Amino acid sequence: MIDVSNLGNSHIDSFAQTLNRQGTSSADDGLADLRREINTRLGQLLPMADQPPASLHNSMRYSLLGSGKRVRPILCVLVSEAAGGADRSFALDAGCAVEMVHTASLILDDLPCMDDAAMRRGRPTTHREFGQSTAILASVGLLNRAFGVIAEHHDAPPALKTRALERLSEAVGSNGMIAGQEIDLHERRNYDHAKPIEGLNWLKTGVLFVAAAHIGALAGNAPPSAIAAVTDFAKHVGLAFQTADDLIDQTGDAGAIGKDVGQDDDIPTLASLSGTRSAVLSCEENLSYAHGALRESGLETARLLALVDSIFGASGAGA
Amino acid sequence: MIDVSNLGNSHIDSFAQTLNRQGTSSADDGLADLRREINTRLGQLLPMADQPPASLHNSMRYSLLGSGKRVRPILCVLVSEAAGGADRSFALDAGCAVEMVHTASLILDDLPCMDDAAMRRGRPTTHREFGQSTAILASVGLLNRAFGVIAEHHDAPPALKTRALERLSEAVGSNGMIAGQEIDLHERRNYDHAKPIEGLNWLKTGVLFVAAAHIGALAGNAPPSAIAAVTDFAKHVGLAFQTADDLIDQTGDAGAIGKDVGQDDDIPTLASLSGTRSAVLSCEENLSYAHGALRESGLETARLLALVDSIFGASGAGA
Repeated sequence: MIDVSNLGNSHIDSFAQTLNRQGTSSADDGLADLRREINTRLGQLLPMADQPPASLHNSMRYSLLGSGKRVRPILCVLVSEAAGGADRSFALDAGCAVEMVHTASLILDDLPCMDDAAMRRGRPTTHREFGQSTAILASVGLLNRAFGVIAEHHDAPPALKTRALERLSEAVGSNGMIAGQEIDLHERRNYDHAKPIEGLNWLKTGVLFVAAAHIGALAGNAPPSAIAAVTDFAKHVGLAFQTADDLIDQTGDAGAIGKDVGQDDDIPTLASLSGTRSAVLSCEENLSYAHGALRESGLETARLLALVDSIFGASGAGA
Repeated sequence: MIDVSNLGNSHIDSFAQTLNRQGTSSADDGLADLRREINTRLGQLLPMADQPPASLHNSMRYSLLGSGKRVRPILCVLVSEAAGGADRSFALDAGCAVEMVHTASLILDDLPCMDDAAMRRGRPTTHREFGQSTAILASVGLLNRAFGVIAEHHDAPPALKTRALERLSEAVGSNGMIAGQEIDLHERRNYDHAKPIEGLNWLKTGVLFVAAAHIGALAGNAPPSAIAAVTDFAKHVGLAFQTADDLIDQTGDAGAIGKDVGQDDDIPTLASLSGTRSAVLSCEENLSYAHGALRESGLETARLLALVDSIFGASGAGA
């Protein structure tokens, strides 16, 4: 549990305790159907496990179909619905594509030459289960499939698909998520203040949240002003999410969380540089900003608010 | 040099010697301008080396901008030109995208957990130069950029771009090139006859040759019958190319070829299972078939014939 005994603030105390329950919260009950729909669709979008080469398809399915929270595809679908849901089936598939990209990044992140993690989503990491070479190919296979899923969608107009593909590639690319991973591995240790950590959190998590919301908004045919505001919402939810993840890594319980903790013990995070209290406050500020941007977008729906609550707990909606 | 002393066939002798000169042949002089144009464009399509994170962008440029033969982008552009060249600038960029995918696969292929190679294109492999984690991220960055390059092309119609993206993802995917790599690493050792080796050569090399030709044909607005024939041409050129590559690995000189040789010493190839003579004959049969398909496509041009000659030597055009 996060040590909040010296914070003297019951609001932060409650928020920190909620973070430690991430993924086990019952606050997301309203989204359970959508999460099930996404899990079903993810399974349909990958080759069957017994299709040769079975080792590769098994490892791709093992990695993708674990117990993920599916925040990114849920975000994509909910934004599309909020914007009018013109192309919901496309938003569902594109959200699944973003989840594939996210999973691909986790497989790499866990490799011996990167974080060397043993557990992920409550099970052995992909390379522990299938070996390094198959894990790397599974990651590349998922990334590649993400683009294929969007490109091959039957009903969406080609112009929507190419815009979505362009956005996804920008978000993943060497100025986006991949840059975040490279900096995380090779530059982060030198960071000694909060600013570059926030920039890194943006690359590691914000960019994919924004891509998911942006593609959902495009699928829903939202006007440009709404797209700008709803991507701002997603950015700040993503930043809060990454800071919360670092807090959990620092203080959480591996059994409850389903992945290795203490991975970041010797590298700076917002929490380690500025303290737990400051990191929790940063989460709250980002969430407060996010709620403002969502209202401004005109796409505020009960389900989008429920999504944020399911991640951070109802207390996160305050402040 | 390939040991052809006991083949008693001067035609095969000449062909085998040509294979050993791959990449140093002067027969491709007519394509030198196009190769230069492709090299320039590849450089433009990647972020500059000093753009942060510099280690990542350096490694991507190092890997992509080495001395590759650029067979796949040349094929894409030439097929597009042969079909009428309706969208040559798109064919150029899409060909560069295929080259990025190819380079991404070479980086992975060379990793310690895969072939553990020291040299590639006359220089240390990417992981030897930049470390494993950066090499893996460079590979993923190139694959991702390939999709971005196609998606963001300014002039091509969205429907052309999505068809190209769909084809590329199919070719790369877990039923294509990535499957080939997985089988190569984990199943190939059990092969004891030629048939599955040919299937593997198709996945390892044929699929990307076919994707390059297919996308070129789409860019050139070729009719379906021409697309079918020209992709058949590319498939058989690719099969010949992979068999030739295995022959060179078995018998070539590392200094002249620019990459490790003898990598496949303990794994079966067409050459090791059926003998050098049979492998050379397989190359020739594939090339003969390829030339027939090219004629049938109606897209036979002097430059496409010159491309095949530049790879295999003029003798490869016979038989």
